Amino acid sequence: MSDQAMQDDNEGATASPWAPANQRQRQREAKRQAVLSTAAQLFNEKGFQSTSLDDIAARLNVSKPTLYYYVKSKDQILIECVNSGLEMMVEGIEQTRLAGGQAIDQLLACMRIYTRIVTQDFGMCVIRISDAELPSEHRAELRRLKSGIDHAFRRLVSASIEEGSIIPCDPKLTAFMIAGALSWIGQWYQVQGELTPDKIADAYIDTFKHGFLQRNQRPS
Amino acid sequence: MSDQAMQDDNEGATASPWAPANQRQRQREAKRQAVLSTAAQLFNEKGFQSTSLDDIAARLNVSKPTLYYYVKSKDQILIECVNSGLEMMVEGIEQTRLAGGQAIDQLLACMRIYTRIVTQDFGMCVIRISDAELPSEHRAELRRLKSGIDHAFRRLVSASIEEGSIIPCDPKLTAFMIAGALSWIGQWYQVQGELTPDKIADAYIDTFKHGFLQRNQRPS
Repeated sequence: MSDQAMQDDNEGATASPWAPANQRQRQREAKRQAVLSTAAQLFNEKGFQSTSLDDIAARLNVSKPTLYYYVKSKDQILIECVNSGLEMMVEGIEQTRLAGGQAIDQLLACMRIYTRIVTQDFGMCVIRISDAELPSEHRAELRRLKSGIDHAFRRLVSASIEEGSIIPCDPKLTAFMIAGALSWIGQWYQVQGELTPDKIADAYIDTFKHGFLQRNQRPS
Repeated sequence: MSDQAMQDDNEGATASPWAPANQRQRQREAKRQAVLSTAAQLFNEKGFQSTSLDDIAARLNVSKPTLYYYVKSKDQILIECVNSGLEMMVEGIEQTRLAGGQAIDQLLACMRIYTRIVTQDFGMCVIRISDAELPSEHRAELRRLKSGIDHAFRRLVSASIEEGSIIPCDPKLTAFMIAGALSWIGQWYQVQGELTPDKIADAYIDTFKHGFLQRNQRPS
């Protein structure tokens, strides 16, 4: 709602200097998300251990006490960042499932979505923060989400073999190879670099589909 | 040297209860290596932050003061573990270079060696310990080694394209894809599991060479 609209609503009454409650709630949530995104960027740049709440506050131009209005602790921020990244992955996989089609098309779509997510703030946290750095009381839940993503890739590989799209192979190993190659993108990707996530996904998907050997080097 | 041989050497003199200096030096080095290997296993199992010198001493059945006879600190142990893993990789790549042959054969040989190393104690540390966890004064040197390994893969991909073994591609992206898929093995590999490093390397190399699509799904 614009300031003008607020004034119109309150015509005749003394205008309140506070925004309406629902607007304040939205502003608060936007600020909370800014805290989490900024924290994720710092974790990805210099590591979780080396990032302090002061660093996060400084980048947001606020004081540390202001941060505490939105988050409880650095550990809580970390959990929310990693959890957001994992939820994006789970939702992406679910969307490709709902879109239907051949298993191989779903698998390739998931690879593209996964590449996009590991090159974003929260997805990169999933890759760059080691399991050992996660607060122990949340480790099991986050591992459960990770394992669910692994199994989704494995099921898509299995279904792609069954429908005759993929050559017979160990679905677990192939799924690990896919998830590994894609996850590692989150380790080396630079947001300011020349490569877009979609260009990277194109190149990886092409190699996964056809291999890198010259055609004349292949067994017939 | 056996105890018997020592006694023979000292025949006529009063046998010393201490081993000769060169033997003591070898024993000391073997014990030092046991400290490093045990530490690497613990770092890989529960993370660097969560592993204490007490944990390492307990698994070796010695006291913490005994450890200090072989190593200065937990940080020093970490550096030596990661450095050993990286040196194994550098040496492995160098050996395939010296063996000569086509670039593609060298590349595939490097992939096999890299897989073997990331499934061993020190190599697994290279993968599981994040850059941010490394002591800052050694980070640049360890990054230099990692970057050298990345560039070796990139050069082999470039040379494989030039000799006509690999289809034209972005060597940097393809090298990242290879190193990523292989590095991730160090994240999920379980020493007690059914898969041997060579079986994993076979499967990965096959997919990299030929892709996973069924032949009848390929463009002619």
